[in-house]
Amino acid sequence: MRSAVLAATVDVLTEHGLAGTTVGAVARAAGVHETSVYRRWGTREKLILEALAEQLDAALPVPDTGHVRDDLTAYFGTLARLLATAQGEALLRLSVERDDTLPDRRLPYWTERLERGAVMVRRGVERGELAPDTDPGLVIEAVSGALFTRALISGAPLDEDLACRLVALTLAGVLPRNRAYRPD
Amino acid sequence: MRSAVLAATVDVLTEHGLAGTTVGAVARAAGVHETSVYRRWGTREKLILEALAEQLDAALPVPDTGHVRDDLTAYFGTLARLLATAQGEALLRLSVERDDTLPDRRLPYWTERLERGAVMVRRGVERGELAPDTDPGLVIEAVSGALFTRALISGAPLDEDLACRLVALTLAGVLPRNRAYRPD
Repeated sequence: MRSAVLAATVDVLTEHGLAGTTVGAVARAAGVHETSVYRRWGTREKLILEALAEQLDAALPVPDTGHVRDDLTAYFGTLARLLATAQGEALLRLSVERDDTLPDRRLPYWTERLERGAVMVRRGVERGELAPDTDPGLVIEAVSGALFTRALISGAPLDEDLACRLVALTLAGVLPRNRAYRPD
Repeated sequence: MRSAVLAATVDVLTEHGLAGTTVGAVARAAGVHETSVYRRWGTREKLILEALAEQLDAALPVPDTGHVRDDLTAYFGTLARLLATAQGEALLRLSVERDDTLPDRRLPYWTERLERGAVMVRRGVERGELAPDTDPGLVIEAVSGALFTRALISGAPLDEDLACRLVALTLAGVLPRNRAYRPD
């Protein structure tokens, strides 16, 4: 039942948008009882968040080309494209909404997503492509944070070129080339 | 009248939170007619956004120490502290809400905020502290995006140390030290 309901949720979202995605509409599309959906997911928001999250992970594979720059550029290029779609934006918007009557499950959810991305950076460190003291999660947060902010807050355009420039920035920094880094 | 109403808005927000900040409550606190507030700002959301934005700019000065790292560390340390407050979070949350009946004013608003920050990076380039091909806005987006994402989406903690590490990341990158950058 779980996967049928989640797939139906994505279908209803695609066709009717966020406002039209009620538990009733999803239950009808999945051919299950509305009460079963409420029993399992509790709220419409949690149902939609879980459905979109599954879809996001499936649509955002973690590449392993053997080169950290290529991996990150491909990964964040895909993320930029996804966030520019209505479904990607819906996932982010739902993540921003909080339901104070329920335990806040956003932090574990996003920590898991962050860890998925950090694997690429960690492999780069292991291969000696990146400095040994690199903070893998911080690299992912800097690039994805800029993409999320455009999608959610500023409304500025999102494309693969932006993702590529953000990856280059976090890898190489902006200090003059050939100037050794001096920690202060 | 404008500054009295904006100051009253911040007062009401601080005392009664977002839900309690109605146009009526603000008008009473400022000693003006509710209709005057609607005439000038149109919606409650625009009123609150403008009030918080003014407060944000006032609370987030752009330093000019003569050193780009010190400027950015101070600026983003202050931003991290602000975003951890209820008012800072409220500003971000309101920026995420969109009112489809009105022209989307978020992009010009956030472009202006971004430009305020980019000035610090541009000065660093002019002083020769940063590479001549540095994209000033991108540096600001990478650091602030990570901070905004923690405040809005993941709920992960925000502090000055995080801001400091993000600034170091975007300045120096994560390539091994002393290895020349090779654009591909």
